[in-house]
Amino acid sequence: MSDIKVGIVMGSDSDWPLVEKACKTLEKFGVGYETRVISAHRTPEEAIEYSRSAEGRSLKVIIAAAGGAAHLAGVLAAGTVLPVIGIPVVGGALNGLDALYATVQMPSGVPVATVALGSAGPVNAALLAVQILGTADEALREKFHAHKEELKAKVAAANSKINEK
Amino acid sequence: MSDIKVGIVMGSDSDWPLVEKACKTLEKFGVGYETRVISAHRTPEEAIEYSRSAEGRSLKVIIAAAGGAAHLAGVLAAGTVLPVIGIPVVGGALNGLDALYATVQMPSGVPVATVALGSAGPVNAALLAVQILGTADEALREKFHAHKEELKAKVAAANSKINEK
Amino acid sequence: MSDIKVGIVMGSDSDWPLVEKACKTLEKFGVGYETRVISAHRTPEEAIEYSRSAEGRSLKVIIAAAGGAAHLAGVLAAGTVLPVIGIPVVGGALNGLDALYATVQMPSGVPVATVALGSAGPVNAALLAVQILGTADEALREKFHAHKEELKAKVAAANSKINEK
Amino acid sequence: MSDIKVGIVMGSDSDWPLVEKACKTLEKFGVGYETRVISAHRTPEEAIEYSRSAEGRSLKVIIAAAGGAAHLAGVLAAGTVLPVIGIPVVGGALNGLDALYATVQMPSGVPVATVALGSAGPVNAALLAVQILGTADEALREKFHAHKEELKAKVAAANSKINEK
Amino acid sequence: MSDIKVGIVMGSDSDWPLVEKACKTLEKFGVGYETRVISAHRTPEEAIEYSRSAEGRSLKVIIAAAGGAAHLAGVLAAGTVLPVIGIPVVGGALNGLDALYATVQMPSGVPVATVALGSAGPVNAALLAVQILGTADEALREKFHAHKEELKAKVAAANSKINEK
Amino acid sequence: MSDIKVGIVMGSDSDWPLVEKACKTLEKFGVGYETRVISAHRTPEEAIEYSRSAEGRSLKVIIAAAGGAAHLAGVLAAGTVLPVIGIPVVGGALNGLDALYATVQMPSGVPVATVALGSAGPVNAALLAVQILGTADEALREKFHAHKEELKAKVAAANSKINEK
Amino acid sequence: MSDIKVGIVMGSDSDWPLVEKACKTLEKFGVGYETRVISAHRTPEEAIEYSRSAEGRSLKVIIAAAGGAAHLAGVLAAGTVLPVIGIPVVGGALNGLDALYATVQMPSGVPVATVALGSAGPVNAALLAVQILGTADEALREKFHAHKEELKAKVAAANSKINEK
Amino acid sequence: MSDIKVGIVMGSDSDWPLVEKACKTLEKFGVGYETRVISAHRTPEEAIEYSRSAEGRSLKVIIAAAGGAAHLAGVLAAGTVLPVIGIPVVGGALNGLDALYATVQMPSGVPVATVALGSAGPVNAALLAVQILGTADEALREKFHAHKEELKAKVAAANSKINEK
Repeated sequence: MSDIKVGIVMGSDSDWPLVEKACKTLEKFGVGYETRVISAHRTPEEAIEYSRSAEGRSLKVIIAAAGGAAHLAGVLAAGTVLPVIGIPVVGGALNGLDALYATVQMPSGVPVATVALGSAGPVNAALLAVQILGTADEALREKFHAHKEELKAKVAAANSKINEK
Repeated sequence: MSDIKVGIVMGSDSDWPLVEKACKTLEKFGVGYETRVISAHRTPEEAIEYSRSAEGRSLKVIIAAAGGAAHLAGVLAAGTVLPVIGIPVVGGALNGLDALYATVQMPSGVPVATVALGSAGPVNAALLAVQILGTADEALREKFHAHKEELKAKVAAANSKINEK
Repeated sequence: MSDIKVGIVMGSDSDWPLVEKACKTLEKFGVGYETRVISAHRTPEEAIEYSRSAEGRSLKVIIAAAGGAAHLAGVLAAGTVLPVIGIPVVGGALNGLDALYATVQMPSGVPVATVALGSAGPVNAALLAVQILGTADEALREKFHAHKEELKAKVAAANSKINEK
Repeated sequence: MSDIKVGIVMGSDSDWPLVEKACKTLEKFGVGYETRVISAHRTPEEAIEYSRSAEGRSLKVIIAAAGGAAHLAGVLAAGTVLPVIGIPVVGGALNGLDALYATVQMPSGVPVATVALGSAGPVNAALLAVQILGTADEALREKFHAHKEELKAKVAAANSKINEK
Repeated sequence: MSDIKVGIVMGSDSDWPLVEKACKTLEKFGVGYETRVISAHRTPEEAIEYSRSAEGRSLKVIIAAAGGAAHLAGVLAAGTVLPVIGIPVVGGALNGLDALYATVQMPSGVPVATVALGSAGPVNAALLAVQILGTADEALREKFHAHKEELKAKVAAANSKINEK
Repeated sequence: MSDIKVGIVMGSDSDWPLVEKACKTLEKFGVGYETRVISAHRTPEEAIEYSRSAEGRSLKVIIAAAGGAAHLAGVLAAGTVLPVIGIPVVGGALNGLDALYATVQMPSGVPVATVALGSAGPVNAALLAVQILGTADEALREKFHAHKEELKAKVAAANSKINEK
Repeated sequence: MSDIKVGIVMGSDSDWPLVEKACKTLEKFGVGYETRVISAHRTPEEAIEYSRSAEGRSLKVIIAAAGGAAHLAGVLAAGTVLPVIGIPVVGGALNGLDALYATVQMPSGVPVATVALGSAGPVNAALLAVQILGTADEALREKFHAHKEELKAKVAAANSKINEK
Repeated sequence: MSDIKVGIVMGSDSDWPLVEKACKTLEKFGVGYETRVISAHRTPEEAIEYSRSAEGRSLKVIIAAAGGAAHLAGVLAAGTVLPVIGIPVVGGALNGLDALYATVQMPSGVPVATVALGSAGPVNAALLAVQILGTADEALREKFHAHKEELKAKVAAANSKINEK
């Protein structure tokens, strides 16, 4: 268990398709993670407990994905000194605008590092976790440089594809 | 303490001017209440504990006021079978729209009875608590009928005032 | 008719699929209810009359579902001392944002207990009605505790499912 | 009373400063009017009654001004075959956006002729009433032509003023 | 041509499916109308000319339907003393919110009577035109009373249908 | 008159404080301009006429500033083949969001080059006019390079100021 | 290469279907252009370099299309004295509202000429480029007059079609 | 310079009052930082250069504060593998909603850790930087535990103050 660095918590298993993208991104970087379904509103004690115990279990970063009145990231941030990354989940009547506001508008003293509402969110949450771990891990930073080169190469390839039309 | 029926919780003492309106409304109806400052993000265990113990302490209704990513009402609702009334607090960069969405957009299974964003909010939260208690208290319902007569009389008075101009 | 505690009013029969979820939730708790189609704009007298007579007919709670310029809950609240729960109905050009604002932004003196815009709305309206009735009915509160245990068990099951993947 | 053509209803006497602009505009055109404070939520029967009796009292147009969950124009429109003009009143936590939506988003069958949210609203409500009366009153249409000439002259004057700078 | 009372103008023939609903509603009331495709941005002179000549051609009301930066109703209102009813057309990237604001937020002096954004819009625009014509036409008012009875009967029928389930 | 290249039109003289910033910016670049108060809704023929005649009078660019249902830029764009720059004017109940949408959401075929809502708008409208004229005027492009150097120098100065604190 | 006047840059090749409309519009006017895929966030140096070199390569106008936190047009505008036209790309969780704001709300000193969010955007971006080039090219202005005649003819045809129904 | 761990970049010196709160928070935790005024639109090369060189200069985290079309955090994130925290700056015509969207809605591959729009933003940005550094610094985590105790104590004190009233 010592190489599990990132705890990924989702409010409902219906968030799995999004969360799976975060998992795959962490795997690509060789970063160990665990996943949990915990609800801020249905299992509030579990949320606090998960968060209170995370540091002691050597986790370094927590990622939380939730929609609607998305309190999950905030509740987890309440219980830990570790950085908490919030993924506002798209969907519902307000299409996730409620989730974005509920995740990002945290009060002074308890930050949540919020990433994009939409399909970029889970990938970027994982990349942000990698960057955070990378602040103390040069090898991981090197992998991130390679990731940036990949992005660049994809743009170049797209440019070629468009101009061959 | 046996006649304390309503627990009023605010996320910060800066919410007091709003909450005070709820208190005065309850006093007008002779309904006993208690007030607490508890923060969903700064004192999460206290929030859960307050909520878990409320029924046992014979409270009947909880009112929660919070702004921004307003998780307080939701966290309290997570921990109790009592009805929880949420007052979204106006203010901040989004002027309380974040608080409205974070209070009302609760997931299936855990309702929060949300009242108006703005100055009507705390008064109406208290009135709603009175209506809830009134479902089992005819005397309280009578007082509410009188309240409605008062509203009607004020409108009539306003009508006279305008037409005397 | 004496065990009908909740009156459910919808603005149009097109709201039935949503309202049905509220009905089923009340049935699960063994709470008696009646349903009506009454329109604030097409049958205004019926709306006032329904609301004025509700207390005398021993109803304890009214639930109202309407979309667009959703005046139904407000008009019913105008005519009764009973708590009125408003379900803003998703749909239309503004996807229900108009219904949410028209339901929740009631003036001082006349509260409407507003629940979520979206699929959680009708279920939570019924649950809130159960909680309100539960303030004077210990057996109902016990059922609500069981409901909370169910929610918790579902989260645990979802957690297992995800981690077996 | 026979020359009272327009009934102006406001939800609260706090709306008077806005409504006064509508009154002055009607006076300028020599159109008779009456004013009432009637609340859709505090005096619902009065609202219906006013509206039901308007045609019989030879009113031709009703103007209604209200803020927040602005149901007044809609309730009046429910009770009459006369055209109802709605003025959404600026103010409150959502600055009148709630009033605009609650006034304009009326269901099929019951129109409200909505004018601008903001200071132009009451003036334009009165002008619209004049235009409506003008459909059967050539003299009034002539006055409206003069009004249009005035607007034009003011623009020309403003143009001169700017270019003299 | 003398019995053409309402001019219906649309910004594009893609608005026809909406406008058709307005036409059918007018036909139901036996009100004569004409239809035009005129664009505020593609044929601006035609727009002004149509509007300037409307009164002389004995039109009584103009209805304008447009989407996006919906200037059509405003431009028509600029050129006439007749009441102009604006239908904001749903669609596009902002789903018609732009059309609603561009139609309703007219400056002081030049009103546009705005109806609902969404499917109720064209029907209500026609009904509003009928109400306006009805201010000087008792027979039309009678038809509108019948229309209101129909609405009422439909609600009663819907109520029966729901309660037979 | 031959060196007047830019026509600046405002919907009302109340827009002058904003428009003045555009004028001063053009003066700094030595670009000749003229100003007009013309209203899309109060003087529609003047708007079309101004726009139809602009090319013949050797204007190269038109700038239009308007608020609310801001139709001015669109109406001017309707009448000319010259590029039209729209400044949405802040203010009113929707704080200019209506003006932004009404200016930018033009239909296919008739573009308006929209600049920022807020204090940057008029300055940037003038700068954009300079850039447009600069496409055929190397000296003007050189002045714009100097403008960019100034911006850069200001940032450097601000950086020094902050770091001296 | 000397007749390439417009550089069209897109943030991703997924923007091609929109950008293609701009290309076809330019082709219709016989205006030479080039296309590039360059990302403000994945290839930032390429963005600056493209923009810094554009004037030297005799480009006259740059068009940039991007979605989400759409920084592309702004970054290109940062690096050139040429006019930059921004197309906010529809899509994502906020349906392009983020792209609209990120494109249009540029700070004082660095304008982006923003066109409509939605399907009109790319066509109008190209037409605006033609208008800009037309300020120094009478033949191009003539073609634009013809374009305006076409728009007018289409409206007339649509009018006939509707009235033949 | 070896103990400078955080680079704080602001788009304009007008952002200093906000940024100062971030500085003071870092000082409280004894975390070394540097400040820069760099504009994504006025000094784009400096932005890229700062960001490209940050890792080599042993910075661990970058904080960026900008308003309007807030591209600064995104441009800095483009150039580095370090975590970038974005503070959307309140103000302007859209009151910072544009800044929030432009900061948080980053495309897949390039995350920005966004904190609250409003006064909590800069404090939370600094706290998040401390949490990130804390993932590899137990002493810093201990300080953060103390920070959390302080928050808790303040809530308790506020609770006492309210209840003494």
